[in-house]
Amino acid sequence: MKGRAARAISECRRIAGMTEEPGRTTRRFLTPPVRDVHALLRGRMENLGMAVQTDAAGNLRGLWQPKGLGAKRLILGSHIDTVPDAGAFDGVLGVTIALELAELAQELERPLPTEVIAFSEEEGVRFGAPFLGSRAVAGRFDPALLSLTDADGITMEDAIRAFGLDPAGIPETEAGAGALGYFETHIEQGPVLEAGGLQVAAVTSIAGQSRFSLQFTGHANHAGTTPMHSRRDALAGAAEFITAAETYARDTDGLVATVGRLELVPNAANVVPGVVRISFEVRHAEDFIRNKAAEGLLDRAQSIASGRKLKFECTRQMDQPAVPMDERLTAFLAEAIETAGLPEKRMPSGAGHDAMVMAGRLPATMLFVRSPGGISHHPDEAVREEDVEAAIKVGREFLRRLAAEVS
Amino acid sequence: MKGRAARAISECRRIAGMTEEPGRTTRRFLTPPVRDVHALLRGRMENLGMAVQTDAAGNLRGLWQPKGLGAKRLILGSHIDTVPDAGAFDGVLGVTIALELAELAQELERPLPTEVIAFSEEEGVRFGAPFLGSRAVAGRFDPALLSLTDADGITMEDAIRAFGLDPAGIPETEAGAGALGYFETHIEQGPVLEAGGLQVAAVTSIAGQSRFSLQFTGHANHAGTTPMHSRRDALAGAAEFITAAETYARDTDGLVATVGRLELVPNAANVVPGVVRISFEVRHAEDFIRNKAAEGLLDRAQSIASGRKLKFECTRQMDQPAVPMDERLTAFLAEAIETAGLPEKRMPSGAGHDAMVMAGRLPATMLFVRSPGGISHHPDEAVREEDVEAAIKVGREFLRRLAAEVS
Repeated sequence: MKGRAARAISECRRIAGMTEEPGRTTRRFLTPPVRDVHALLRGRMENLGMAVQTDAAGNLRGLWQPKGLGAKRLILGSHIDTVPDAGAFDGVLGVTIALELAELAQELERPLPTEVIAFSEEEGVRFGAPFLGSRAVAGRFDPALLSLTDADGITMEDAIRAFGLDPAGIPETEAGAGALGYFETHIEQGPVLEAGGLQVAAVTSIAGQSRFSLQFTGHANHAGTTPMHSRRDALAGAAEFITAAETYARDTDGLVATVGRLELVPNAANVVPGVVRISFEVRHAEDFIRNKAAEGLLDRAQSIASGRKLKFECTRQMDQPAVPMDERLTAFLAEAIETAGLPEKRMPSGAGHDAMVMAGRLPATMLFVRSPGGISHHPDEAVREEDVEAAIKVGREFLRRLAAEVS
Repeated sequence: MKGRAARAISECRRIAGMTEEPGRTTRRFLTPPVRDVHALLRGRMENLGMAVQTDAAGNLRGLWQPKGLGAKRLILGSHIDTVPDAGAFDGVLGVTIALELAELAQELERPLPTEVIAFSEEEGVRFGAPFLGSRAVAGRFDPALLSLTDADGITMEDAIRAFGLDPAGIPETEAGAGALGYFETHIEQGPVLEAGGLQVAAVTSIAGQSRFSLQFTGHANHAGTTPMHSRRDALAGAAEFITAAETYARDTDGLVATVGRLELVPNAANVVPGVVRISFEVRHAEDFIRNKAAEGLLDRAQSIASGRKLKFECTRQMDQPAVPMDERLTAFLAEAIETAGLPEKRMPSGAGHDAMVMAGRLPATMLFVRSPGGISHHPDEAVREEDVEAAIKVGREFLRRLAAEVS
């Protein structure tokens, strides 16, 4: 397993060099470096005897289902897009581990058919809408998404066509009745496993999240000649809201609230800002607490705007309830952790993952791998080789348990 | 004068269509549309019998100094660069009125030599450093400025060369002993004249301004898995500072404080912001009050950053003391307002202008024209034709007074 762990890691590092921006890793949905990632992964899949295709949503899919084997296939995978200036392991490690596990599945006493999927999009960076790849495979891809535009004004439909794919084929990408479930390995991206001295954990559920695009509109005017009392400063209003959201989240156990994106118009030092657009997201394991926080803070934004004679607009971009993982598969996974000689650990995920979307179509479960320093979405994102080795061992036990079950 | 006012305004509107961005007026230092503006103005200058050149700092200069006339020349002008999504009149109106006045100066009983300068840069948008054109003519252009880079990584030196000019010639652009003074007409860009029912005013002094670039550095991390208490959110820190600066300025009579520019890294909805860079500027007619405000608020920024375990860095970009206009020329201008049959009005300028820089080299004065709604740095920026007509009448009286004085 040591050699497999080293290979899974070194391929992540190699893929991190396939980027839109020299010197840092940024790889959005169907941008040019995605072709290089596909070429690399396609080679691996073909070496495993898989039938390989890129589906209409840009997912690279390798299928190993020998005739006569009979059993349904297990889908293994994660995503290959990244946030701007990303680390090497978020998503990609789940794909390179899936390839190792697919090979191990062929070597089992009772070989298990597998499909490995490198999902095209999970982060939501390019079009502001996440999980594009898994939405398609889960049969939940709303065709209205195709009209979204990126920062360059390119529609999603045009981006898919420019990659040589036909968006009309998206409905056919849905995983059919031949799949028995979905299994994803992912770095934890948080500090919990490290704090507990643990290498891996079975994920029990994924926290729900609400995401909004908010706009404050005031009036751009000259910064030297417009007295403070006659300003309608959109940024001052947004700043007041950002502080209010932080204070609310700090006071609510388990809640996180984040303004991660901000766009200012006209964005010049000597002009009072006229328009500010921000992202706003709230996450919590309990839907009731999350919804109460989102509603309360949006009311607060409206009242801050009114008090400043700003116009306030809100567009809901995501309302994702908390999603439990499949109980049976998660029990198998927890067993596999023990069989591999590790302390059993179950925990919720604070982050959304493709497994959350896939769970709407198939029984799904997830394995977390320890994140040193809890760091993710940052170039310092790392994994320890012994933890990846542990994850592959656990994955093999999980496959063995599943193969025994289905045969 | 009515025909002259209409022409001065219609040329501003025509120049507003010369822009980097279709549908809105943005014209930064030596960008391609500046060539179109130069072609138009060069034609006007040549029709006035002027010798025309573009100097090494990109200023377009037309000189009318007939042999035998003897007298020193009056420099008339303003700038032709704009903020992003600008109006049509900030700067440009001062140039089109200068052309009308240059013609009137030739028609005086005692003709007055003139030089009209369309300054290349005043707003500081492209390189974060304002007054590039007038700094050169005033002999205050620091060669270190040439190393500044714009948003595309192009240095100022390369930008000047790309326009076909040689930055080595900048020292020779300085106005020599042959100039008797500088006169600039400019829209007020504020609400004072309109509130007083006045068309024009003589400017007595220009408020000082301090401008800084501030950076808050925390740590980018995953927005779903990083609990609030372990975040080092650079944007939350900047937001707290923006609110503090606004509160301080609201409580200090005559002070304005503005954060007009904000840049966020990595700027993605699901990432806690790691780095925020903002512009920060403070203006007041009293240098003591301005300096106290700037120092107090920078201390506050440092303490906000420390309390949040953020790194705080501050770069001073401008420290411009309040600048009085020349007493004698301003008295002539105030007289000219009365001679033109208008109520005399003197006022300070809250905004910086090329006249402020030129005052370091030559006696300088300025005439303000009413800004409807006080609106500037915005597409709704406007002027009334009768106010422009009044400004040209006042300008003619000022020229006549000056010509009588120097002959």
